[in-house]
This record gives sequence, structure tokens and C-alpha cells, in this order.
Amino acid sequence: MEAREISKTVIARLPRYFRYLSELKDKGTERISSKDLSKLMNVTASQIRQDLNNFGGFGQQGYGYNVDYLHGEIGKLLGLDKPHNLIICGAGSLGTALAGNPDFINAGFRIKAMFDIDPVKIGKFLHGIEVHSNSELEDFIKENDIDIAIVAVPVNAANDLKDKLIDHGIRAIWNFSNTDLDVPDDVAVENVHLLDSLMKLSCVKVQHLDA
Amino acid sequence: MEAREISKTVIARLPRYFRYLSELKDKGTERISSKDLSKLMNVTASQIRQDLNNFGGFGQQGYGYNVDYLHGEIGKLLGLDKPHNLIICGAGSLGTALAGNPDFINAGFRIKAMFDIDPVKIGKFLHGIEVHSNSELEDFIKENDIDIAIVAVPVNAANDLKDKLIDHGIRAIWNFSNTDLDVPDDVAVENVHLLDSLMKLSCVKVQHLDA
Repeated sequence: MEAREISKTVIARLPRYFRYLSELKDKGTERISSKDLSKLMNVTASQIRQDLNNFGGFGQQGYGYNVDYLHGEIGKLLGLDKPHNLIICGAGSLGTALAGNPDFINAGFRIKAMFDIDPVKIGKFLHGIEVHSNSELEDFIKENDIDIAIVAVPVNAANDLKDKLIDHGIRAIWNFSNTDLDVPDDVAVENVHLLDSLMKLSCVKVQHLDA
Repeated sequence: MEAREISKTVIARLPRYFRYLSELKDKGTERISSKDLSKLMNVTASQIRQDLNNFGGFGQQGYGYNVDYLHGEIGKLLGLDKPHNLIICGAGSLGTALAGNPDFINAGFRIKAMFDIDPVKIGKFLHGIEVHSNSELEDFIKENDIDIAIVAVPVNAANDLKDKLIDHGIRAIWNFSNTDLDVPDDVAVENVHLLDSLMKLSCVKVQHLDA
């Protein structure tokens, strides 16, 4: 089974399966039918069967899915059986909050360093992670086998930083700056737009009042 | 023009239009054709025309869209012409980072208070916002016309908190706990799953190595 055979759309759905399977595992559930998983996840059972059959069909007719096995296999597809080394660019309050998030560490993500341009922050330790100067970025990435760079800098600094990261060999960028970062085809970017998400709620409120 | 006539799918796309139009406005762009907006946003021009015609057609054939007008109208549809009062439940590092995010304040969101159960935190001010005891939640929501509650508490506390918030009259929840919160039909929830987003990048890395 090779990850590259699976479509991007299915891959994008895997983290959600993984999260629900983690919850089931924690509750001690050993098997689950596509029908029950469907109700739980609010997805059609046929969608679930289609998605999971994509990579070899972990289900057995009438027996349902083995939660532990499925969890492990999806984890492998997500690359979670290998550790990932991260850096955080931007030691502001969001960067610092991400550095201290236990969920990432529990999932095998290792935050190796933070980077900032502010001399007051450089040399400090935040959640046990040292803040380095941006001038050390290139050497640090190369010497520490960094997979993923988190961009948590102000929007006007994000594009220059992205170019530097790609120059230094980064191929996966997790972007929290409030702008879409364009990247070449061989670089993956996840743009997390917190304000977009919040605006969906301000909008709902208006509808609610108008209704 | 009433917001409730627009489909949820289109509404979900409005924040992204709003963000791009804000960037164009900041650059001083006065008009933009659907073709140029399409290139910029990486969406088909026909999609853009369809979306924007949904609420009255702001474009004029051959002249393109008036950036300032379109920005204002989409802002209204998103409810951004009225201020919104928020509270943050959970004064941990993520809650604190959200409290200090200037993007939210600039967009008209007013964070009125934070809530926590930790006696050490209660009474403190974080980014100028006071941390209250959870016991004050009900009165505070009612007395301060709170629209939106941010849930930034550990996953095991999220569901109980959600039930309380809904009981106290909250109809919009921005959830950062790493679990989907189920809500009744008249309550809006945006589940922000940071770990899901990060996992899409760990996955890409594996593909990159296999290729």
C-alpha cells in the first residue's frame, strides 16, 4: 500500500477519521460498523466504505472495522509512524501557544526551535523551546532534519519568509499568517485562516437576527 | 438583500473573498475583473461570477467589480458592519493567544472577557482582558450581550462547557478543542481542528519521500 496512490481529497479526510478512531480507541471500542461510524461522524456509510476501501478495505462484511488496526493503518498513511521535526517562525503569542500545544507532541510532532527577529526574544526559552535568530534559519533547518515549518509572523513578513524557507529546503509549510501563501508544486502548504473561520460565525449571527 | 437567501456553501466562501478584497483595497486597487480575481484567488471566473451574482451582481460587464463597494457589501453579509461581543473560555496559552490577536479586533470583534477554572488565573488580565471564574459565565453572557463564545479548553471539558454555553443563550461557538462539538440546529459551531490541519502536512511528507 503506497500513500501516493490515494487522491488528495481522500487524504484530506484522513485526519478526521484518525481523530474519531483515536476517540473510539480511548473509549475501549474494539470494532465499529460503517453504519455506526457514519452516524458518529455525520458522513454517509457509503462514503466511509468508499474512502476506506481506497486503501485496501480494512472492513469485513458483517464484522465492521477493527478500530485499533484501522487507527494504525491510517496513522501510517498520515506519516504518523515516523517522527516529524518542526520549527516555529514567529515567537509571538500564537507561535508560543502552538509551541505549548500537547496535542502536537502526543501525535509525534517535535518542535525543535522557534525563530524571531526580536533581540529581546532571541535566546529565551518558551515552553522549553529556544528562540533563535532568523539568521540561523538556514543552518538549523539543514542540521536538524526539519520537515515542517510553521509560519506565525505578521502578514507583511509572511511571503519573504516563505521564500527563504523553500530556499532552505522546507517542503511543508503550516501558515497562520492571514494571507494565502503561494508555493511551487513540490511544496505543501496548509493555510489556516483563523479570521475566515470566525467570520462564518459573525455571519450566522446576522442570519439568526434576520430570521 | 437578505443574508438568509444565500446558501451555506456560498456563505462559507465569503470570508475568503472578503480577505482578498481587503488586500486589494490596501493596495489601492479600485476595480477588478472576474478574470483577474479568478487568477488571484485560484478559483474559476465562472465560479466567482456565480457567487457574486448570488447577492445582486456587483459587477458590470466590461468594467469589472468595484473593489471598495464589493468589500463593503460582503462585509455586511458577513455581519461585520455590526460589532460582535466575544468571550474566551479557557485562559491557557491558546486562549491567551486568541485574546491578543489584532486581526480579530481590527475586524470588529470585541473580546469582553476570558473564563477559567484555575484560581491562579482568575482576576488576572491577559492582553488587557480580565479572566473571570466559570461561575460568572451565565450572568456575564446575559449582561454583556455576548454573541460568540470561543471554546479553548481541554477536550474532556469541551462538551460540558458547550452545553452550559447553549443553556446560557450562546448561539455561535468557535471551538478549538480537538473534538467535534455537536450542537442543535439553531446553534452555529465552527470546529477548528489544528491537529487535523497539521496531519495533512505530515502525510505530504511521506508521499514526497515515496515519490
